[in-house]
Parts: sequence; C-alpha cells; structure tokens
Amino acid sequence: MAKAIFYHAGCPVCVSAEKDILNIIPENQVEVIHLGTDKTKVKDAESSGVKSVPALVLSNGNVLHINFGASIDDLK
Amino acid sequence: MAKAIFYHAGCPVCVSAEKDILNIIPENQVEVIHLGTDKTKVKDAESSGVKSVPALVLSNGNVLHINFGASIDDLK
Repeated sequence: MAKAIFYHAGCPVCVSAEKDILNIIPENQVEVIHLGTDKTKVKDAESSGVKSVPALVLSNGNVLHINFGASIDDLK
Repeated sequence: MAKAIFYHAGCPVCVSAEKDILNIIPENQVEVIHLGTDKTKVKDAESSGVKSVPALVLSNGNVLHINFGASIDDLK
C-alpha cells in the first residue's frame, strides 16, 4: 500500500497535529515531510491538492487539511 | 483507552472524510456521531472545542478539524 504523506511546516499547529496523527496512524504508513526545510517538495504538495499545512495526503489521493497552520502560498 | 469521536453532519465533505478516517483509524477506536440527526450532541461537540465539521476529537482532548463541511453554528 502506498504511504500517506503528512506535510507540515514546523509551526505549533503542525507539530501538535503531527503528534496526534502519528498517534493514530501506524508510523510505517505515513511519511512526514517538513515543507519549511524541504522547499523543493512544496510543488509536489501543491499538485497533490494541499492548500494549507498541516495536511495529510492519503494513498487514495484524498487530502485531509487538518486545522490550519499556514497557507501553502506562504511556504513558497 | 478512551475512544476518539468523529463528529459529522452528513454533508459530502463529511462523508468523504469519514470514509478516510475510518480507513486509517481502527473502527473500534472511534465513535461516529452525526450531528445532523443527533442535535442533542451539538453542545457536547461545541464544549469539546469543535468549531466545524467534520472534526475528530481525540482521547487527549485535541480537536482535529478536517477540511471544512459546515460550521457548528449552522447545526444548532
């Protein structure tokens, strides 16, 4: 099964959501990408439909925007 | 362990998120409450910090607002 991808940007909302998500999803089923430190991935995130972080892109392609930390536009 | 509670209101955004959440969280760890049909629970949701649905209230008290279907105010 393809992994889910959790995109975040290191903000407090992101870090809190990351802990919660990693609590409820087995860690080997989710890849965590920090868009603040890995700017090359911002385009990937955007083309997956991520509009803000934190967000979880599921293996079926659906995007769950979880709370609101920062807009993807602010990470470019 | 206390269960997480997934609040929704039957809207398309909610139904889609519900499927995704129940895919990634074991079903016996989450209780699903439909606020559209069970209006008595709207107050509980609100006092847990739910501002919109769909939302997942975790056993640690944190609220994950997932995408945006409807404001809790619209369900009263």
